Amino acid sequence: MAGPSLDAIRLGELAGRLNLECRGDEAASVHSIAPLHLAGPGQLSFLAGPRYRRFLSSTRATAVIVAPEWVEHCPCACLVTRQPYLAYARASRLFEVPDEVVPGVHPSTLLDPSVKVPASASIGPGCCLGAGVEMGEKVVIGPGCIIGERSRIGERSRLMAGVVLYPGVRLGRRVRLHSGAVIGADGFGFAPADQGWERIAQLGSVVIGDDVDVGANTTIDRGALEDTWIGDGVIIDNQVQVGHNVRIGEHTAIAGCVGIGGSVTIGRGCAIGGGAGIASHLSIADGVQVTAMSFVSQSVRQPGTYSSGTSMDLNHNWRRNALRFQQLEAMHRRLGVLERRLKRLETDHG
Amino acid sequence: MAGPSLDAIRLGELAGRLNLECRGDEAASVHSIAPLHLAGPGQLSFLAGPRYRRFLSSTRATAVIVAPEWVEHCPCACLVTRQPYLAYARASRLFEVPDEVVPGVHPSTLLDPSVKVPASASIGPGCCLGAGVEMGEKVVIGPGCIIGERSRIGERSRLMAGVVLYPGVRLGRRVRLHSGAVIGADGFGFAPADQGWERIAQLGSVVIGDDVDVGANTTIDRGALEDTWIGDGVIIDNQVQVGHNVRIGEHTAIAGCVGIGGSVTIGRGCAIGGGAGIASHLSIADGVQVTAMSFVSQSVRQPGTYSSGTSMDLNHNWRRNALRFQQLEAMHRRLGVLERRLKRLETDHG
Amino acid sequence: MAGPSLDAIRLGELAGRLNLECRGDEAASVHSIAPLHLAGPGQLSFLAGPRYRRFLSSTRATAVIVAPEWVEHCPCACLVTRQPYLAYARASRLFEVPDEVVPGVHPSTLLDPSVKVPASASIGPGCCLGAGVEMGEKVVIGPGCIIGERSRIGERSRLMAGVVLYPGVRLGRRVRLHSGAVIGADGFGFAPADQGWERIAQLGSVVIGDDVDVGANTTIDRGALEDTWIGDGVIIDNQVQVGHNVRIGEHTAIAGCVGIGGSVTIGRGCAIGGGAGIASHLSIADGVQVTAMSFVSQSVRQPGTYSSGTSMDLNHNWRRNALRFQQLEAMHRRLGVLERRLKRLETDHG
Repeated sequence: MAGPSLDAIRLGELAGRLNLECRGDEAASVHSIAPLHLAGPGQLSFLAGPRYRRFLSSTRATAVIVAPEWVEHCPCACLVTRQPYLAYARASRLFEVPDEVVPGVHPSTLLDPSVKVPASASIGPGCCLGAGVEMGEKVVIGPGCIIGERSRIGERSRLMAGVVLYPGVRLGRRVRLHSGAVIGADGFGFAPADQGWERIAQLGSVVIGDDVDVGANTTIDRGALEDTWIGDGVIIDNQVQVGHNVRIGEHTAIAGCVGIGGSVTIGRGCAIGGGAGIASHLSIADGVQVTAMSFVSQSVRQPGTYSSGTSMDLNHNWRRNALRFQQLEAMHRRLGVLERRLKRLETDHG
Repeated sequence: MAGPSLDAIRLGELAGRLNLECRGDEAASVHSIAPLHLAGPGQLSFLAGPRYRRFLSSTRATAVIVAPEWVEHCPCACLVTRQPYLAYARASRLFEVPDEVVPGVHPSTLLDPSVKVPASASIGPGCCLGAGVEMGEKVVIGPGCIIGERSRIGERSRLMAGVVLYPGVRLGRRVRLHSGAVIGADGFGFAPADQGWERIAQLGSVVIGDDVDVGANTTIDRGALEDTWIGDGVIIDNQVQVGHNVRIGEHTAIAGCVGIGGSVTIGRGCAIGGGAGIASHLSIADGVQVTAMSFVSQSVRQPGTYSSGTSMDLNHNWRRNALRFQQLEAMHRRLGVLERRLKRLETDHG
Repeated sequence: MAGPSLDAIRLGELAGRLNLECRGDEAASVHSIAPLHLAGPGQLSFLAGPRYRRFLSSTRATAVIVAPEWVEHCPCACLVTRQPYLAYARASRLFEVPDEVVPGVHPSTLLDPSVKVPASASIGPGCCLGAGVEMGEKVVIGPGCIIGERSRIGERSRLMAGVVLYPGVRLGRRVRLHSGAVIGADGFGFAPADQGWERIAQLGSVVIGDDVDVGANTTIDRGALEDTWIGDGVIIDNQVQVGHNVRIGEHTAIAGCVGIGGSVTIGRGCAIGGGAGIASHLSIADGVQVTAMSFVSQSVRQPGTYSSGTSMDLNHNWRRNALRFQQLEAMHRRLGVLERRLKRLETDHG
């Protein structure tokens, strides 16, 4: 368990703030959260799925967030809700160590004279903000961020340490960008010339909606002509690459290490599993799920879950099967020949 | 559409600068570029492939860059060329917002006293240049770059914000490195010891040729004994990993998220698709294309297009087929047995 | 060959420092290392595997590190050991250009007043160290690093330029973090809400053991409730993503571009090949090897080598076989039908 302990919260207050029903001693208090099997006195826990059910009856937690049907199996106080995982999410934020955010601009930061910083905003040391940058109330910019000219950052958005925005990037409200994220670098656009490649200027930018989360070292390229566009409520994990002209619909989730080719359109409410790849110029419907490490090589018009690849096996077995994969077309032909020969034999015989 | 509008350019001038034939009103002017179906009055567009042909006859653009055979279908002025995509690339750069590059060294940058900066070069704020760094005319180094000792940067090269060069890295002329690129970190070299691993010093460096483009958050490791080497005109997208001792031939293109193992040699004019992986110590001939998300597990001696993996399918179907993949060797044996048994039956029957 | 030449070392001294047996002129000296086929007079080389055996008899090196059985084929002085690759690793570090590390804190670095820096430590320019950061003797922090509050850095650890530690991260002794590494960013934890996602506070941190190496632009996320934990002697290459709550056992090696899902446990002494992916919540036993670009989709309970995917082929062939992969279940059924029909025919015939 890491982090300094916080002031404890009484269960009654917790229930009130999270709109949960408290069964048990409302005056009891908790100071941190832990998984069911590790929680001890003074800790809050939760039961949100089948994986942890077996730990409920023996938990030593002071209180557990549970669905109504599990209350009777709970050996301690309960905070009851039909959505225990969501309630855990909300509770978790109460236990966060408050960040040391001081409004104002650190004197070591370089601010173009044209930039107006609201009094409620905080800009850390060693940043560099170009001409015409605009930002809303309560924006927090961590140390070492570089914000290109004309970028706009919506209210309450937060850039962690070492984020780079290229010129003209627009972020909505309550956007969170983790360290090493690079937003608005040139899309990978080159025309083949007689010898080698000629660069295509990337004249679009990146527009990110409200409540978007972008993970560490993720890159989102600017558009070639139009803007790359990330819808409201999209969540993107670490090490993701989003190519130029991509459009990602509202509330879609992109797991780590995903690569999204140029000019891809992804619908709303999709979930792209870790390490998946999406080929350029494809379109993916709303509500599509792509399993981890799959390669999307054609557009997906229907919601559903899609996969590619093969299952893991002992290398010894895998090698033999992989060899036969290269003979699949031949095997298919041999199968057809067998069927015809057998048919003939059956006919003759019959 | 992002970015401030530029001064308009007359078609006659555009045709002159790009060496195109202008058919239509040379005095008409355009101020930006847009795709055929989105362009309006005052905008330039282009037709470079079959995907957009259907939009040509109804485009509202003021002018379109087209191949000769499409002139008659064009409802507006034409800029005619046999290579419209290349002409678009060249035109696009005329519409780029000029960067705010001011020659000189920002006072917040730390320059080792041994570093000589040409008067035409521009070094942004918050950089750190080590002893013996050398650079050519018109080099531009963005904010927050860290340039290790003895690195050399050829004329007109440009490092965007937050690029790291380890000591001794050598860049050619007109190289562009995007934010978060790390050039010259240690290769992943360790010898197994009785307990754990012992680090192998990475004594080589990285040498990058002329006109090389490197994407955001891409990493190119220094060599163990020799240098990692990137040929002239190579283009590398974001989030690419280039291992130690790798050699990449001239004009090869590497798409995003590619991983290239140590000591790999890639020929000239290759194209490696996004997310592909290349196992260590392999050699790839000139002119090889690897499709996206493929794994190159053996050397490639002949030009051509190579692939691995399976096609995406509905997870429901994929699971069944993936299960059978693990029985492929068995299926192959059963097929052979069937063939022998049928042969015997046919012989008996015949 | 890169880097300035060092003072030469006499073979006798080299043998003494590395505990090798010297056969040949102990007074001869070497100034650098090179592969067998490229080495010349004044250079040391080594023979560590079958790949280079053919170059031994014709090498022009002044001395070669070899196993006893190869001494007789060596045309020059020998440094003899049963572990030539390990001896090369140790020798290589003697030829490293000593880094320009100056103890002390660069005046441009921002140090919270609570931070105590040992006199033997070196903190480069442009860094930012938060309240309560602690560090051991001989720690080296490169330029532009950002160290969050309450982080702890063990003695002799080294952060290259531009590393980010989020608050509360704990590093052991002799840890090396390469540029662009981000340690302790939020894990990807969100609960589905009625509309979109609610963020789950990531209350754990990251704990990294002794002698751990982390590559450039690698990300290791902080835990949701417990800490993400990296054991002693683990080596991690570039562009790796380690999800929240992951545990990696001692001396495990993780190659470049690997993605490790949340709550994965990896045993000791494992080797995860480049570009491999590991699905969330899985457990991998000690001593497991996963080949490059494989996807680990289920827990691995036995040591051994595991793989997934298909072998690379010419795209022309691959397309046909990949098409048949989607018919594998159908082919399997047809095979079963054929077997039953043939059996009947054989029975009738017999």
